[in-house]
Amino acid sequence: MLKTKLPIYLASQSPRRKILLKQIGLKFTSFSFDLDEKIFDNESPVKTVKRLASQKMIVAETIKSDGIIITADTIVVLKGKIIGKPKNKKDAKTILEQLSKNKHFVYTGFAIKNSVSNKIIIDYEKTEVTFRELSSKEIKDYIASGSPMDKAGAYGIQDDFGAVFVSKINGCYYNVVGLPLSKVYSALKEILIER
Amino acid sequence: MLKTKLPIYLASQSPRRKILLKQIGLKFTSFSFDLDEKIFDNESPVKTVKRLASQKMIVAETIKSDGIIITADTIVVLKGKIIGKPKNKKDAKTILEQLSKNKHFVYTGFAIKNSVSNKIIIDYEKTEVTFRELSSKEIKDYIASGSPMDKAGAYGIQDDFGAVFVSKINGCYYNVVGLPLSKVYSALKEILIER
Repeated sequence: MLKTKLPIYLASQSPRRKILLKQIGLKFTSFSFDLDEKIFDNESPVKTVKRLASQKMIVAETIKSDGIIITADTIVVLKGKIIGKPKNKKDAKTILEQLSKNKHFVYTGFAIKNSVSNKIIIDYEKTEVTFRELSSKEIKDYIASGSPMDKAGAYGIQDDFGAVFVSKINGCYYNVVGLPLSKVYSALKEILIER
Repeated sequence: MLKTKLPIYLASQSPRRKILLKQIGLKFTSFSFDLDEKIFDNESPVKTVKRLASQKMIVAETIKSDGIIITADTIVVLKGKIIGKPKNKKDAKTILEQLSKNKHFVYTGFAIKNSVSNKIIIDYEKTEVTFRELSSKEIKDYIASGSPMDKAGAYGIQDDFGAVFVSKINGCYYNVVGLPLSKVYSALKEILIER
């Protein structure tokens, strides 16, 4: 669907982001690195995800500088508080109990840069997610499956339990999975236009 | 996740519905049959999808009567008009042009019946979907891919082009794919309770 002679890189460890970019037919390679994803109490969700995507881009550019690079960061925000990945199983339980029968927001910030032309787009997407009431057995079984541990907000809307925990969303679905495909696709098109 | 000694049957030809039920870990077998899915101008979307799911159940029960049967029907409604599957490529083009830069609604009606206890649940889900503006090239390429032809509204939100055509949804995502997983799961739990 999108054509370019430049190599495209996804700088992310998330297997979900790889699946999403493959879904829209993008040819890319991926790499990852460790970054201390600091959250500051006085920083808004939008600023946080855009800053983290930008910080990842700064590191990513030192690794690959011959094509298009995509970076992203996803957070969950419940009652104004930013929730990252769970620290341990107990933390995952606390997070899921808080999400149960509540609305929260998922923010994904992303940066797309053409390191040849130096053109860069930094943007974000926000989606409201509503959970139905979860039973303590469902929370326990879900944590036992291992799935919550590497995910912001301790759930994946695309996995077995996650799919039946979410009663509705308002916004972009793929943003909740980890990358707002519609916005990312439009940004890629914009980045690939040669002027 | 859900346990029963009874066999579970999905009476649907849709490969998407099979994938969705597998996603939530359900063990089932599927079968399908032809049914003339009549649409009446003076019938509401809700009544239409519930009627079609019920009609499918009546036929399905004549084929399998020893377990739990799931039937479903999905339609797309644009400006009050029900849009089914495209009749041909030209029809698919007209539908996608109408959906472009517009909001529409997706309705899925479903029926779940325990043919042993005769308990039945008939329900539906409604999701609002917003398309960004599509270019004529995108519509042409999407139709050439063949994907629109077996889908209500001539698109699949889960496929390559569909994913980047939809800018936002309001409601259940899986309902747009073809089966509202959260509601179906709750209904199955209800059907499986032995009293």
